[in-house]
Amino acid sequence: MLGYAFMGKAHSNAFRKLAYMTWPPPLVPKLIAIAGRNEQAVAAAAERYGYETWTTDWRELVADERIGLFDNGGPNALHAEPTIAAAEAGKHVLCEKPLGRTADESYEIWRRVAGAGVKHMCGFNYRFVPAIRLARELIEQRELGELRHFRGRYLQDWGDDPTLDTWRFHPDEAGSGALGDLGTHVIDLARFLVGEISSVSGFVRTFIPGRKVDDALEVAVEFESRAVGTIESTRLALGRRNAFQWEINGSEGSLYFDMERMNELQVFRSDDDRARGFKTVLVTEVDHPFMQHWWPPGHIVGWGDTFVHEAHHLLEAIATDGEVAPYGATFEDGYRASEIADAIVRSSESGRRQAIEFRTL
Amino acid sequence: MLGYAFMGKAHSNAFRKLAYMTWPPPLVPKLIAIAGRNEQAVAAAAERYGYETWTTDWRELVADERIGLFDNGGPNALHAEPTIAAAEAGKHVLCEKPLGRTADESYEIWRRVAGAGVKHMCGFNYRFVPAIRLARELIEQRELGELRHFRGRYLQDWGDDPTLDTWRFHPDEAGSGALGDLGTHVIDLARFLVGEISSVSGFVRTFIPGRKVDDALEVAVEFESRAVGTIESTRLALGRRNAFQWEINGSEGSLYFDMERMNELQVFRSDDDRARGFKTVLVTEVDHPFMQHWWPPGHIVGWGDTFVHEAHHLLEAIATDGEVAPYGATFEDGYRASEIADAIVRSSESGRRQAIEFRTL
Amino acid sequence: MLGYAFMGKAHSNAFRKLAYMTWPPPLVPKLIAIAGRNEQAVAAAAERYGYETWTTDWRELVADERIGLFDNGGPNALHAEPTIAAAEAGKHVLCEKPLGRTADESYEIWRRVAGAGVKHMCGFNYRFVPAIRLARELIEQRELGELRHFRGRYLQDWGDDPTLDTWRFHPDEAGSGALGDLGTHVIDLARFLVGEISSVSGFVRTFIPGRKVDDALEVAVEFESRAVGTIESTRLALGRRNAFQWEINGSEGSLYFDMERMNELQVFRSDDDRARGFKTVLVTEVDHPFMQHWWPPGHIVGWGDTFVHEAHHLLEAIATDGEVAPYGATFEDGYRASEIADAIVRSSESGRRQAIEFRTL
Amino acid sequence: MLGYAFMGKAHSNAFRKLAYMTWPPPLVPKLIAIAGRNEQAVAAAAERYGYETWTTDWRELVADERIGLFDNGGPNALHAEPTIAAAEAGKHVLCEKPLGRTADESYEIWRRVAGAGVKHMCGFNYRFVPAIRLARELIEQRELGELRHFRGRYLQDWGDDPTLDTWRFHPDEAGSGALGDLGTHVIDLARFLVGEISSVSGFVRTFIPGRKVDDALEVAVEFESRAVGTIESTRLALGRRNAFQWEINGSEGSLYFDMERMNELQVFRSDDDRARGFKTVLVTEVDHPFMQHWWPPGHIVGWGDTFVHEAHHLLEAIATDGEVAPYGATFEDGYRASEIADAIVRSSESGRRQAIEFRTL
Repeated sequence: MLGYAFMGKAHSNAFRKLAYMTWPPPLVPKLIAIAGRNEQAVAAAAERYGYETWTTDWRELVADERIGLFDNGGPNALHAEPTIAAAEAGKHVLCEKPLGRTADESYEIWRRVAGAGVKHMCGFNYRFVPAIRLARELIEQRELGELRHFRGRYLQDWGDDPTLDTWRFHPDEAGSGALGDLGTHVIDLARFLVGEISSVSGFVRTFIPGRKVDDALEVAVEFESRAVGTIESTRLALGRRNAFQWEINGSEGSLYFDMERMNELQVFRSDDDRARGFKTVLVTEVDHPFMQHWWPPGHIVGWGDTFVHEAHHLLEAIATDGEVAPYGATFEDGYRASEIADAIVRSSESGRRQAIEFRTL
Repeated sequence: MLGYAFMGKAHSNAFRKLAYMTWPPPLVPKLIAIAGRNEQAVAAAAERYGYETWTTDWRELVADERIGLFDNGGPNALHAEPTIAAAEAGKHVLCEKPLGRTADESYEIWRRVAGAGVKHMCGFNYRFVPAIRLARELIEQRELGELRHFRGRYLQDWGDDPTLDTWRFHPDEAGSGALGDLGTHVIDLARFLVGEISSVSGFVRTFIPGRKVDDALEVAVEFESRAVGTIESTRLALGRRNAFQWEINGSEGSLYFDMERMNELQVFRSDDDRARGFKTVLVTEVDHPFMQHWWPPGHIVGWGDTFVHEAHHLLEAIATDGEVAPYGATFEDGYRASEIADAIVRSSESGRRQAIEFRTL
Repeated sequence: MLGYAFMGKAHSNAFRKLAYMTWPPPLVPKLIAIAGRNEQAVAAAAERYGYETWTTDWRELVADERIGLFDNGGPNALHAEPTIAAAEAGKHVLCEKPLGRTADESYEIWRRVAGAGVKHMCGFNYRFVPAIRLARELIEQRELGELRHFRGRYLQDWGDDPTLDTWRFHPDEAGSGALGDLGTHVIDLARFLVGEISSVSGFVRTFIPGRKVDDALEVAVEFESRAVGTIESTRLALGRRNAFQWEINGSEGSLYFDMERMNELQVFRSDDDRARGFKTVLVTEVDHPFMQHWWPPGHIVGWGDTFVHEAHHLLEAIATDGEVAPYGATFEDGYRASEIADAIVRSSESGRRQAIEFRTL
Repeated sequence: MLGYAFMGKAHSNAFRKLAYMTWPPPLVPKLIAIAGRNEQAVAAAAERYGYETWTTDWRELVADERIGLFDNGGPNALHAEPTIAAAEAGKHVLCEKPLGRTADESYEIWRRVAGAGVKHMCGFNYRFVPAIRLARELIEQRELGELRHFRGRYLQDWGDDPTLDTWRFHPDEAGSGALGDLGTHVIDLARFLVGEISSVSGFVRTFIPGRKVDDALEVAVEFESRAVGTIESTRLALGRRNAFQWEINGSEGSLYFDMERMNELQVFRSDDDRARGFKTVLVTEVDHPFMQHWWPPGHIVGWGDTFVHEAHHLLEAIATDGEVAPYGATFEDGYRASEIADAIVRSSESGRRQAIEFRTL
């Protein structure tokens, strides 16, 4: 594990918990070592989460032959080099989003890691929300017909404090602001649920004086399928603490979701029923690929549990030599999200609609 | 009254109802005459709503000296000529939205009518939803601080039927599709609540084969105040029957509204309260300028009642020689909405962000 | 019309509005005369609502041969004598709820009026909420299977003011407090939707010092069908302005309703759908017996409009010599609600479950 | 640990997870041994959850000197004897609810365990829902003023299957049906939030043919404080999977909660704000005694996490020799819930209101 803060906690919890909640687990994780910048903090994290050892030099993890999976939960600036090094040392890799700080950096990570032949997953954990997985399955089963609209917005409000300082506000460490942090989640989910994005028209905006990264973005998007919609994110939507909300409209039905009520999916289907409307579906039934591991129906899971599903998915791919795609995000997905994010910045600067083109290996 | 269908019914009901619900009324409306294309239908409407006479020639209304207010609820193609003629005959005028089919036509209506010196109001009736008026007052009182975001979307689903045919699908009669019908409502409300729009980036889209007007639009917008956001509308959002939804985020609070729950306003204010969150405000208190006329608190009004408030507002302006602005939409507001709608079309065609410039008289 | 205050306004609006909204109306109402205690107020009401004449002596209405329908919207103490007199003078009668102040008084009104052979309806207007009518129809069509539970509560908060004084707090004028005012609405709806009540166990309670009527009631109920549930009402539920909420569970589905969102019905049906949950049904479709008169789908009605449906129903029964039952509440329904209300008081006093027995004519 | 099924899983997860999520933990749990009836199943559970050993004879746990806390998650019939034995062997005890199958059995457990001088907690885990703890704190701080109403209902629907068979349907193993399983949760929460219950009037009811325990209960209740309300529970509310819903109204405000949205508390406060209404409070702020251990604000927890808070509370009481009360439920609370449950059965049988009297030690 690289990183002991927010993502370090979320991932460590996931590996510990899946060992007994998803039974039998595809592989039984051993927490071998954790790396981080601050010696005292990383030592405390090792004790807390049960890593056998700790280090302030991630290269030690790369060199450690006992380690089969390298999990990168560090700041964005620390994604490329350690992840590539770990992969080239033959380790499977899990890297937090955004994959790189730019499309070029993300492409390079993808290219090098894919070349190494290891399993790679980018931490778009919202694919592992039970309600979102159900949405994907309903769409795959054509329950919504032809998709026409996606409107996704990821709204938080913690950025409304000019005195705050974290690596997330430093362009060199973070790459961007709301765009990389929240916007890439919306982009990935749009791609996961609706399909590939073909153009973006919009802009980013910084409101807080002195802040060096964007606070918000507003984008009109086209999909290859002819669906259209919007992508927005902001850290300045007061009262929205973690409101990743999206709606999809198709020719046969619609879906609506809000991360603050993450165990619910709103489902509308066109039919002849006199009582028509959106169903509030509590996604806790045991016929669900994630929920079979948990509690009886009606007993909800939490945000942290999405990482259990994510880690389980990766371990299963490793154990069976299976694919991370399509339910997990590969590094190619990570790269594509970056390519689209960069296009938003170009559209912002040029005032022009940007057609999206993706590089291949 | 010109028009006996949807808007003719809504306006006729408003004039009849305000005569006793808003007591004492600023003026007591007399329903003198109604005009429409179909002789049988207009005769039936006259009987139904209590108009003294009817005609298939709107010029008779213009020539009728007993008529002091000309109310145009006809198709968009019939907005310009009759409205201008009535105003130039000295009658006050109320015209449904969109004012004209293009910015040029709207400008011409505004110019000619303003020149006639009569009162003019454009039928953006959502300004007269109690919750929206409360929103405007809260914003005026600076309860939201500096505004940062507006995201507005007007979603309906009746357009999802390729066999439907109404004047609303004919470019010459309607001018545009979802843009003029629904999009101008969003544009007007954005201007009413947040302020003037300075640029648009986005596009319109037609999905139904053979349809000659747009089904949907997706736009990223900037405001003069530096606020940013999105404007969307569609007639193809299955399950959304009349979902005019919008959210505003400011530096001190946020608001959320959905027309399908039009008696509610969601209000968030930043404070030190440990119990923080959006309030679901049932806007039925008697200290409200509209609700004072109705029932005890908790007893909601309906969609049709917004027209009662709208008509009352216009009659009060006429009775007192007061202003329609700022709580009512003038023809200048009608023109400006058209100017922005045209800019959306230009952005759609050119792929470029369009700065908005307004003509003056 | 007897009474010019809250109910006088609601009923007068209904008669005026149905004349053109429900087209063609079964009968065209003429507003002939209104009676009330205060001369100035009743004169103003006559002018406002368009009654031809007014009087402070309701006996003049009874004697007026032009009047075919006597509408009693006066205080509870004024229900019996004028209503009976009007019926015995051959007029059809509409009387606000509760029918009488006690079961005995209600029985007497029913007996005498039924004996007069006129149409009689008791003003349980919530039967005329579109969503509630839909609920009744779904239940009639056995969509919920065998009913098992009803939990109904009518919550308001205006009673939380010890300085308030209205006839509603005087036992001789009102008969009871929340029980007659709100509780009888819950009782009537329980009977309308689930069937006859067979026993009650519970009590009434007064919280406000010095108040002479009950503020609240809490009751466990049994139905003849073996369904069970609760009936509650209070005027002291802070934040609940007009929250008449109920839920019904059957062997095939469930319904939920809240009067503060009166255009919505929550519908759950048991089926094999993987996406199971309550549907939020916006009850505005034109295939609905009430909504066919109004606006396109998605455009909601208000609280006052329930009286339009109620008055329309009665006029249709008069015009066609049809039945007020089962969709309207007859005076027998009014009497039965009183019988159950009295049983609640007896249970409160005795601490014993009260089996319900109804008198017949 | 006694029991490896539903509660065995929930408790085991709690002990594992608190060791690193609540940091530093008051005590670091060691999972020494687990007991259960079925040899194969208990062996698998030991492996899964990491217990050092397993046994089919709970007496081995009682005899094991390494064990300091005995956690009883077995069927109700197995609560009394093992729990008493463990306490009398000097172990602290945690016992699932209902404490015993009857008030007599519960009293005996309480008496014997209290006599042993160990810490005892009854598993009313809903006291450890963050939103419910916040509710308790708001009430303690008098933010609701004098409490007037409590209406609590615990609705599930899994009982609607006549072919189901589990120990929960056997009177000798379970004691009762919905009453002991769900009803005691409502009773405990009523006592936790509002105060002691003084009388009950109502009944239990069995719907499913052949079922030997109750499916539902409907009760009107009085509290010592003069507050009044209702208590209901059922396993036959189709569409309600785990809907523990309650509302409290006081003289200064109101609260509403639904377990299916367990991270939210609806809060109404009486004030002079023009925008009045219930706040939807997302209870995830880090100033909360439970939420400080988890994620940044807005990131919700799940149902299973309530047991983490519960176990943490007990370990803290053990580590500091502190009190389980008032935030945790002691065995006295467990006994009192049983006493009230028994009174509901007596009221059901006798048709009489039952005043509640509690035995003391």
